[in-house]
Amino acid sequence: MIIKKLQDNIKNKSCVCVGLDTSLNYLPDEMRTGSVCDDLFRFNKEIIDCTKDLVAVYKLQIAYYEAAGIEGLKAYKKTLEYIKSLDLLSIGDIKRGDIAATAKEYAHAHLKGDFAADFITLNPYMGYDSITPYLPVIEEEDKGLFILLRTSNPGAKDIEYLQVEQQHLYYHIGDHLQEMGKEFDDNGMPRIGMVVGGTHSDEAKEIRDRYPNTIFLIPGYGAQGGKAEDIRIYLGESRDKGVVNSSRGIITAHQKNNSPFVEFQNVIRNAVVKMVEDIHG
Amino acid sequence: MIIKKLQDNIKNKSCVCVGLDTSLNYLPDEMRTGSVCDDLFRFNKEIIDCTKDLVAVYKLQIAYYEAAGIEGLKAYKKTLEYIKSLDLLSIGDIKRGDIAATAKEYAHAHLKGDFAADFITLNPYMGYDSITPYLPVIEEEDKGLFILLRTSNPGAKDIEYLQVEQQHLYYHIGDHLQEMGKEFDDNGMPRIGMVVGGTHSDEAKEIRDRYPNTIFLIPGYGAQGGKAEDIRIYLGESRDKGVVNSSRGIITAHQKNNSPFVEFQNVIRNAVVKMVEDIHG
Repeated sequence: MIIKKLQDNIKNKSCVCVGLDTSLNYLPDEMRTGSVCDDLFRFNKEIIDCTKDLVAVYKLQIAYYEAAGIEGLKAYKKTLEYIKSLDLLSIGDIKRGDIAATAKEYAHAHLKGDFAADFITLNPYMGYDSITPYLPVIEEEDKGLFILLRTSNPGAKDIEYLQVEQQHLYYHIGDHLQEMGKEFDDNGMPRIGMVVGGTHSDEAKEIRDRYPNTIFLIPGYGAQGGKAEDIRIYLGESRDKGVVNSSRGIITAHQKNNSPFVEFQNVIRNAVVKMVEDIHG
Repeated sequence: MIIKKLQDNIKNKSCVCVGLDTSLNYLPDEMRTGSVCDDLFRFNKEIIDCTKDLVAVYKLQIAYYEAAGIEGLKAYKKTLEYIKSLDLLSIGDIKRGDIAATAKEYAHAHLKGDFAADFITLNPYMGYDSITPYLPVIEEEDKGLFILLRTSNPGAKDIEYLQVEQQHLYYHIGDHLQEMGKEFDDNGMPRIGMVVGGTHSDEAKEIRDRYPNTIFLIPGYGAQGGKAEDIRIYLGESRDKGVVNSSRGIITAHQKNNSPFVEFQNVIRNAVVKMVEDIHG
């Protein structure tokens, strides 16, 4: 159900994923009451309220909430609950990677416990036994994963791009994940998505063709230089096989424009509208 | 200072790192009051109190605390603060890996903020720009890192062991980290340690010889099959260049023995004593 729901959102709304990488620094003065949890939550809530008809999914980068401590994590929890209460979708961008008993604890925390999201991101470096403990849980709880494959940062060249048997390391990993995804699927669509981005068109096509059914989480739009034309390749011909994240490009739009507080929701919404038009044309 | 302090602890106490991977399931009935935070903290405190003269450092696997939600993370914070208050050392086993602005948030959270530990573990998969944002912070705050290199799980063969230019991938990463560590050091000892373990003696010797000054965090003792003879190779000739983690082997010792509650601290302490004798002879 969850993969279908995400694809329906992409078709009916857009492929845009709004990244709620919420720092206290981004809050307009009018939203600062002194309660870290309440203030972070209010900021997120106002953004969700004014964009929810346009957006496929919201991604919360947990690092920002951890940096704000216990109060920050309360806001993380509350935001995920709010998204769920509106029947919208969430990605917990946690990039965890650990094995065996530890992975089971993370699966509990981020798919069932206080921090339950619809999708989570994972790091495969420790090997496939750092992914397998999540698989029964995503099937039972109707959830999905996005595994880091070829990320959009310059450092992707350091390790992900290394040549292993005449091909990039990330293809070794991707091929294996594609196989795993065939067994853990949602009506034929794998529950194991991949994080890919920040590359030129030829490579985007190669990756899309190699993993024809996989849903991609595509970072790096805007601030990090990802272009609409490459992103469209990742979305596939059906245009529903990927979500494109933008964080600061959306949630700090009010600061760039130095707009009055009364315009906050308008400015945020307009940033999303602009992104939708850029990608979907 | 922090690297020297860790090495002094190894020399004066032992190389043992007690892993506080604390699940509510491990708590004796007598410790269950119904407050998740208080109960998890009390369990950790009693273990710390009865082992602190024997142990180099305590490692908290954050996944267990995240699984217990907000209350669990309060216990994580409180335990780190307690360790600091006794002038003991802590490792936050967080295995985070993310880039740029996000990595800075994690650095704030886990080296300065609510969850500040003396050392943290990191995952290098996304490339070296997922490590560099931590470096100024560890120097300013006098902290250290342990980067995942060759882990002790069977899945280490999946990615870490892949052949890149006729050698294991982890050596490519290790060589680079060793260079980075030369610049960020504590009186000549790199602040960038490595997580290595679970291998046969020849390989342990190869890794030790290749990174002669690096401090290793060695998982996999006991339950996961790590043997004292291999561990001694990792410690180096001076026997002070590594810490050896045991989690369940120590913190569930009371459950294995089915011992009365009054014996709790004795049983835990004896498990540590046995490990010290096994490794240090």
